Amino acid sequence: MKLPERVIINEVSLRDGLQNEPRVVPTEYKILLAGALAGCGITRIELSSFVNPKLVPQMADAEDLWSRVDRQKGVLYSALILNERGLDRAIKSHVPFVGIYVSASEAHSRKNSNMSVSEAKSEAVKLIKKAKGAGLIVRAGVMNAFGCAYEGHVDIAKVLDIIESFLPGGIDELCLADSSGLANPLQIKDRIREARKLSGNLDISLHLHNTRGLGLANLFAALEEGIAIFDTSLGGLGGCPFIKGAKGNISTEDTVYMLSEMGLETGISLPELIRAANDFEPKLGREFSSFISRLGEC
Amino acid sequence: MKLPERVIINEVSLRDGLQNEPRVVPTEYKILLAGALAGCGITRIELSSFVNPKLVPQMADAEDLWSRVDRQKGVLYSALILNERGLDRAIKSHVPFVGIYVSASEAHSRKNSNMSVSEAKSEAVKLIKKAKGAGLIVRAGVMNAFGCAYEGHVDIAKVLDIIESFLPGGIDELCLADSSGLANPLQIKDRIREARKLSGNLDISLHLHNTRGLGLANLFAALEEGIAIFDTSLGGLGGCPFIKGAKGNISTEDTVYMLSEMGLETGISLPELIRAANDFEPKLGREFSSFISRLGEC
Repeated sequence: MKLPERVIINEVSLRDGLQNEPRVVPTEYKILLAGALAGCGITRIELSSFVNPKLVPQMADAEDLWSRVDRQKGVLYSALILNERGLDRAIKSHVPFVGIYVSASEAHSRKNSNMSVSEAKSEAVKLIKKAKGAGLIVRAGVMNAFGCAYEGHVDIAKVLDIIESFLPGGIDELCLADSSGLANPLQIKDRIREARKLSGNLDISLHLHNTRGLGLANLFAALEEGIAIFDTSLGGLGGCPFIKGAKGNISTEDTVYMLSEMGLETGISLPELIRAANDFEPKLGREFSSFISRLGEC
Repeated sequence: MKLPERVIINEVSLRDGLQNEPRVVPTEYKILLAGALAGCGITRIELSSFVNPKLVPQMADAEDLWSRVDRQKGVLYSALILNERGLDRAIKSHVPFVGIYVSASEAHSRKNSNMSVSEAKSEAVKLIKKAKGAGLIVRAGVMNAFGCAYEGHVDIAKVLDIIESFLPGGIDELCLADSSGLANPLQIKDRIREARKLSGNLDISLHLHNTRGLGLANLFAALEEGIAIFDTSLGGLGGCPFIKGAKGNISTEDTVYMLSEMGLETGISLPELIRAANDFEPKLGREFSSFISRLGEC
């Protein structure tokens, strides 16, 4: 299959990247980072989640952030929501685009949402309906679609079953998330093909982690299957912040570098992106795990 | 194309991995490491190079190492040579398998061998002839076959020209080396196809660096082209040791992990490999850059 000529980067550093950081990042820094990302040419920014502020203090400023961020023309901002309360808050904040996820792992579903997979699925179907009714763009996603840190192997049937439940709601995009960083390139290809049998022409996006170093290999395998939307995080932020060397999401700058070397268009300036990474690394007080942004040191 | 079912790992940590380390590693450690690697099920070990000990002090113990290492049955040990003096030393040390390389970059050729590409090519042809005449197994390789840290783009015509000069010598294997870590997956595929047009059924091996984080993506692309021999280095050793975060060769343990997750056989025990990495990291006094060997900490 021919690789897509143009690839959309959905930047998730502000949400998935920061949500596990032990130190709460000031809203000011988040606003600066959102501005810097848009300035690099990024056209999709996941700005926050609307979740319980007691459980995720890093996201407690969601309303404040959404009201203060300078929304750039041509940039689609999104938020992740887990339940109806979150969706209501997002609608109130004039969020145009929401992500709604169900985990394909029973253990992870209970930890993440305190619901069984079956309950989470029903809840998601309701949320999708309400969000679409409110005129929002909706991405529905399957977390741990390639394996689970708690359960190990995740059966493809479970993934397909969740996808099937999403489809009647008229979602705008289907996301397959390797939340535990357990995917491998062959599995990526297989599961994309299986998902596509159900979802037809619906856009499929991929959320990849680089926990075991296979992130960009998985991305290449997905490109070969025609996938053209990827979640990435500046500096590879995300993952476990307490552990030296633990890697998070695939890095925005390494991804853009790879795509650009292969002649695929993203509309994003790599030098600006590297500058942004070098600016925000000290601000966030955490060593980034991307490769490209530190090559200048060599 | 179907992926190869069985993949050969050519372990280069003792040569490419160590050659730039500022601290000379005692021969005793090298012997222990060679033993540990063979114990993991690795069947090819590049033990050293025979080069000028004044220029590469880390390799000054080549004769000592070759005479003292316990050569395991079923393991093919090799050495890199740059010139006739090195080949003579290798033959005297009963080295069964040598690697002979020419850089496709003029600037790198001068730095690495003090010869132009054309001179290095003639020298390599002579070396191949002599090595084959002495009954050795010969790998001939093209360094910087995908780009050069000094020159940037390297024309494919230069690479093919070097390959053509190797072939009449009856080499046993052709190696394409991404010495500067500049390859991308599409280029890997293109250049393998071009090389194969000349080399036919000759085994092609790939030497990949992970300088820009694309190592395993490149490996996957090469597997899709049917490549089944890869150079890897324990802990991702290699590259620039003075720079924090600078990455070297693709890591043996991450590669074996990826291959095993995809169901490709290597005959290598991943748990033993991780144990070896954790044993040798403190001995070598350098932080490893592999992902899999540090996941246990999380």
